[in-house]
Amino acid sequence: MSESESAIQAAGLELREEPVAADREAVRRMVADSGFFSEAEVEIAVELVDERLAKGPSSGYEFAFVESGGVVSGYACYGEIPCTVGSYDLYWVAVDRSQQRRGIGKLLVQLVEDRLREAGGRKVFIETSSKPQYDPTRHFYDRCGYVERARFPDFYAPGDGKIVYEKSL
Amino acid sequence: MSESESAIQAAGLELREEPVAADREAVRRMVADSGFFSEAEVEIAVELVDERLAKGPSSGYEFAFVESGGVVSGYACYGEIPCTVGSYDLYWVAVDRSQQRRGIGKLLVQLVEDRLREAGGRKVFIETSSKPQYDPTRHFYDRCGYVERARFPDFYAPGDGKIVYEKSL
Repeated sequence: MSESESAIQAAGLELREEPVAADREAVRRMVADSGFFSEAEVEIAVELVDERLAKGPSSGYEFAFVESGGVVSGYACYGEIPCTVGSYDLYWVAVDRSQQRRGIGKLLVQLVEDRLREAGGRKVFIETSSKPQYDPTRHFYDRCGYVERARFPDFYAPGDGKIVYEKSL
Repeated sequence: MSESESAIQAAGLELREEPVAADREAVRRMVADSGFFSEAEVEIAVELVDERLAKGPSSGYEFAFVESGGVVSGYACYGEIPCTVGSYDLYWVAVDRSQQRRGIGKLLVQLVEDRLREAGGRKVFIETSSKPQYDPTRHFYDRCGYVERARFPDFYAPGDGKIVYEKSL
């Protein structure tokens, strides 16, 4: 068992890495309730679950769900970037509102990094918005050891830039 | 008719913006023959045609083909970046080997830019490799007015970084 799996167990949580149909609604709820994401972004988060349910591993999307008594507390979605050798995108990390400040986000990021190391991953990328409301998100990635690698002003919309974080494994 | 459409006509070429099934092979040939792309990349170029053929405009992939006497001389593939307002990726520009040095690539880029301006596009992004073999590609983007915005060393593979170019419309 990897260190991150032990830590999830020690926190009284269960890990599940294969999505089921009910995860569509769990993902929708967690991503929407976070208040950070637009409706279009919520739909995309759900679509990635759909892709995985329809196509399995060939979808390119990997998932990790942590649960407490069968209820999803948080999840991560990641995948190898097409046409790269060992570069991965961490697409989503979301934690149920009632379960925040318990360190679940960090446990999920560590689990993903362990899985990527096992798979020969070299780099993890995370994209996020430059808007002030995302300050907590960016501090979270800082604390997880991610480094800002690029900024694209006005990328998402005028006044809403993209920041790309990277971590070498 | 936009300026770029007139220029395509003046060059004795025809423009077509809806892919047909035969474009799968034309795209495969042009992208493979360029010598710049891996097999996996060639497959992705063809997959984008498939997505468009299967889903139409909702695929998110737009195309422009220039033809001479019914034979495809070059093509471009582009699309709005999900969750952005007016930011587009120019995914592919490829010109048949026998038709190069006629300015077809530049005509295609100008046509794409005209289309994006018409659609309210603000920014165009292009990603390419940092490897020396891509020097001509990067010089081409320079000449088209694209500016290097970010570099990610070792992104595609060790020693093969990604460069992101941007142009504001």
